[in-house]
Amino acid sequence: MIEDSPLESVKSQICVEFESDAQAKIIYNSIVLEFETAPDYRSTMDLTLEGKCILVDIDAQDSTSFRASVNSAIKWINLSLEINNLTNV
Amino acid sequence: MIEDSPLESVKSQICVEFESDAQAKIIYNSIVLEFETAPDYRSTMDLTLEGKCILVDIDAQDSTSFRASVNSAIKWINLSLEINNLTNV
Repeated sequence: MIEDSPLESVKSQICVEFESDAQAKIIYNSIVLEFETAPDYRSTMDLTLEGKCILVDIDAQDSTSFRASVNSAIKWINLSLEINNLTNV
Repeated sequence: MIEDSPLESVKSQICVEFESDAQAKIIYNSIVLEFETAPDYRSTMDLTLEGKCILVDIDAQDSTSFRASVNSAIKWINLSLEINNLTNV
């Protein structure tokens, strides 16, 4: 907890739903390494695959590192979606 | 769903935990109106108060409107925390 802020923690589970299990699995496999190697001392991010959904669990000490984690996670998912779209043309 | 994206939706529940119920209530009361009047056609945001936690439920059609909603929600919470800090000096 940052010294004077009464904010204890920010936790979230994000469910990103895709059209199919196969689509979710492709995106999951292409981003899981990013999550394992993401350096941030004030928040943890866990990625799990459940059918058509990719679940992103974020646990952050403060709102700034929470926002950074959410933005990174969504950026990685978007990037791999775009690459996937390009390779399917 | 945006025409060509295989991403169906992005949903999340964010739990922002405070030091005390009283602190959570002060912040909740100061931001609840923002959530009720936030115009965005591609995502919905709901705010609930549960003890020391403010729960923010976001349901977005795509990742862009999801990120916008998360960033707005966190910004409002931070702003009211800062105002609250100033008034307590």
